[in-house]
Amino acid sequence: MVNGEEQQQSICNALAEFKVGVDNAIFSVDVAENRVLVLLLKRQGEPDLGQWSLPGTLVRRGESLEDAAYRVLSEKISVQNLYLEQLYTFGGPARDPRESPQSFGVRYLSVSYFALVQHEEVQLLAESAETMAWFPCDRVPKLAFDHNEMVKYGYQRLRNKLEYSPVAFEVLPETFTLNEVYQLYTAVLGENFADYSNFRSRILKLGVLCDTGMKLSRGAGRPASLYRFDSEAFAPLKDKPMIFI
Amino acid sequence: MVNGEEQQQSICNALAEFKVGVDNAIFSVDVAENRVLVLLLKRQGEPDLGQWSLPGTLVRRGESLEDAAYRVLSEKISVQNLYLEQLYTFGGPARDPRESPQSFGVRYLSVSYFALVQHEEVQLLAESAETMAWFPCDRVPKLAFDHNEMVKYGYQRLRNKLEYSPVAFEVLPETFTLNEVYQLYTAVLGENFADYSNFRSRILKLGVLCDTGMKLSRGAGRPASLYRFDSEAFAPLKDKPMIFI
Repeated sequence: MVNGEEQQQSICNALAEFKVGVDNAIFSVDVAENRVLVLLLKRQGEPDLGQWSLPGTLVRRGESLEDAAYRVLSEKISVQNLYLEQLYTFGGPARDPRESPQSFGVRYLSVSYFALVQHEEVQLLAESAETMAWFPCDRVPKLAFDHNEMVKYGYQRLRNKLEYSPVAFEVLPETFTLNEVYQLYTAVLGENFADYSNFRSRILKLGVLCDTGMKLSRGAGRPASLYRFDSEAFAPLKDKPMIFI
Repeated sequence: MVNGEEQQQSICNALAEFKVGVDNAIFSVDVAENRVLVLLLKRQGEPDLGQWSLPGTLVRRGESLEDAAYRVLSEKISVQNLYLEQLYTFGGPARDPRESPQSFGVRYLSVSYFALVQHEEVQLLAESAETMAWFPCDRVPKLAFDHNEMVKYGYQRLRNKLEYSPVAFEVLPETFTLNEVYQLYTAVLGENFADYSNFRSRILKLGVLCDTGMKLSRGAGRPASLYRFDSEAFAPLKDKPMIFI
């Protein structure tokens, strides 16, 4: 016979049952307006009906986490160049109103993904501006679930990737001016991260940008050199620690 | 009435049911032997009975992911200083023999954690060397499930953390010689990452090590200065991109 304590113990040790979701923190940088944006969606169903949230879905039978992340992306936006990676997994008890700490019912775990897209290139699909929109990262409203935390993690990941990886060149056009690179960095890292001439000489010193020989004339200023990212020069450096600012 | 195609569609869209596990990739560096080690456990139950694996567990009702990770750690090792962070989430279909791609039964998702401990300090609890042991990272056998991939991810994380963060000083003794730091880095990054005198001048230039004024005499060589990590000097640099090699 099972006594009270053992019964208690076996209840405590019982395994949790989960549904698994993916939520995408999709960022873009509006260089012209000097703003980092994140894509938000108004929830169409319970729980948290009508609250802004990250685009997400629950994982289906036979579907991988990454496939689920791509499924949401392809339903919401159309884009040619995309950087996507897993961000962080949120799985604590009671993170979703559908589970209560006491109910011991099904739990909802979310694997969040970080995505970076080129702002000029991306098209929002179907929904209206009232149900899906880009929000400046510093003006994100109170989101559903723990999605504010996901945005915070994602923004930090974006900063880290700009500092330590050439991710910027995945969302810049094929050719760009150094000033465009600087504006992208400034939008994310803030005005004070470096002055332009320091940034210019440091980024050129890395040896991964290639002067195309072409110039861009805009307004009355001196024509600016157009560069492209040199993947061949970068290849041998890929596994070396580098700072991109 | 639901027709065949709709029925098919609704089966395809059905949500997967999950059990969630955590698996810990616990690393330590044996500086004397110049080796990076990972802790492995022989599986005591099905599936994959008798195969080496990472120490892991399934998440219980009411338990957070991190609490589950700490529960496994405290069952397996005794240690004072520990660095732990989430590594990566593996959740594809058919990653566990208990689920078959066709069965559409319960799936097993694993949130892996990366841990770093000080080799001299850690004690293995209870089990014998035949069921739990440190393995050099370059001699890890075929592991259960996708745990070889977790070790690979973990080892890469260890390299990145050494390159871009002061994690080394969390697993070195309170005071250390620069040669001990160099040996730790060499064990992880390989002999060729830098020669000692370059490494020495670069790491001192960061300004986060503090000479204690004490010397360590060992053998016939010149006494070596003992340093400690200067958390106060590091605090304002915490959010700046830095390279530690």
